[in-house]
Amino acid sequence: MTSRKVVELFYDVVSPYAWVGFEIMCRYRNVWNIDLKLRPALLGAIIQGAENKPPVVVPKKFKYITTELMRSRDYFGVPLHPPSDAFKVMFQKGSLSAMRFVVAVQERENGGDKQVEQVSRELWRRIWSEDKDITQPASLSEAAVKAGLSDSDIKELLELSDTDEIKDKLKNTTQAALDYGAFGLPMMVCHVNGKQDMFFGSDRFEVMAHCIGEKWLGPQPVKAAASM
Amino acid sequence: MTSRKVVELFYDVVSPYAWVGFEIMCRYRNVWNIDLKLRPALLGAIIQGAENKPPVVVPKKFKYITTELMRSRDYFGVPLHPPSDAFKVMFQKGSLSAMRFVVAVQERENGGDKQVEQVSRELWRRIWSEDKDITQPASLSEAAVKAGLSDSDIKELLELSDTDEIKDKLKNTTQAALDYGAFGLPMMVCHVNGKQDMFFGSDRFEVMAHCIGEKWLGPQPVKAAASM
Repeated sequence: MTSRKVVELFYDVVSPYAWVGFEIMCRYRNVWNIDLKLRPALLGAIIQGAENKPPVVVPKKFKYITTELMRSRDYFGVPLHPPSDAFKVMFQKGSLSAMRFVVAVQERENGGDKQVEQVSRELWRRIWSEDKDITQPASLSEAAVKAGLSDSDIKELLELSDTDEIKDKLKNTTQAALDYGAFGLPMMVCHVNGKQDMFFGSDRFEVMAHCIGEKWLGPQPVKAAASM
Repeated sequence: MTSRKVVELFYDVVSPYAWVGFEIMCRYRNVWNIDLKLRPALLGAIIQGAENKPPVVVPKKFKYITTELMRSRDYFGVPLHPPSDAFKVMFQKGSLSAMRFVVAVQERENGGDKQVEQVSRELWRRIWSEDKDITQPASLSEAAVKAGLSDSDIKELLELSDTDEIKDKLKNTTQAALDYGAFGLPMMVCHVNGKQDMFFGSDRFEVMAHCIGEKWLGPQPVKAAASM
């Protein structure tokens, strides 16, 4: 007996690698026999909670990652373009208000996760494609408009973002990620037949596919499946 | 006009991920249109030279890597089995004498790299399959015997290992890795049509294949190619 496979995807829109993981998983949920659960969390709190250091504090890693992101853009087809001051954007400005907003969108959405998917993508696009702010309410509004939300919805969501309910939800999801063993994002937890497997990063999709009994078809699985 | 592709593989037998990278590249050199150049280097000096920290200093990373290595064993078909005290083995005992020995084997070998490949693999097997020492001359001898070297060759190689010539070669290769931007191992530098691309780790083979214009056929390319 095979029960439905569930993949929890923990992400933060401040992380470019999380964007790659997000897009790949959003593509594969139409190909693999999985339920994808979007789990917005806070990268800064995970790095701190795990007593980790961001890789960019090592200059040679920073240089490598810059090159590597451009390869990921080309290979995975995610329009990454580093902001002018990536360190400041990621580790000083951060994503607290943006991720609270994403959680609010998720909380309000019924019958699916199309809105939370679109809003997340538009926030990534701002920070990791267009070098735009994601900390101010006006920035969140602009992203939400692009994701197709109405002005009245956005007003309500901005208010909701600031409630204890939403703050606690973001904290709890972040804690859940830490409890699974996260030390960074993206992090995927695959639940298959009562077993759970945690994967970190955006470079183990092929191994993950193998572990959950699905087939890795490369970064554009829909095209690959169509041509088979 | 396409010139021959060259892949330099920088490795140290103290690193389990380098073992994965080594085996995959040794398999693919029979599949891809590449010249593989084995470049034995010293991981400890690279980590220090890059002002990096080994990932295992973060407890959650250490735990994750332990799980991840078992997945790599199964998926990539490399018989990894962590030694009882991996931290001590990797960062206290280290691999200085072992890597000098590997460099000596390479220096002495004519017309190919079969011996250096075999000796490297036997050293990895000792440390990362069988929880055995690789620091003592007797340990190096045992590995070399398994790799098919004669007693007289081994005696000569142990003496050669201790010369300035070999010490300097290991230093120079390690410095070359740092100059390419290494902060850990394995590290692959691909030279294609006058362009060079550096890849770190054992989780970007698919992207690497794409960058050098070759096809990724999974961890067992020879079987995959035979069935195509």
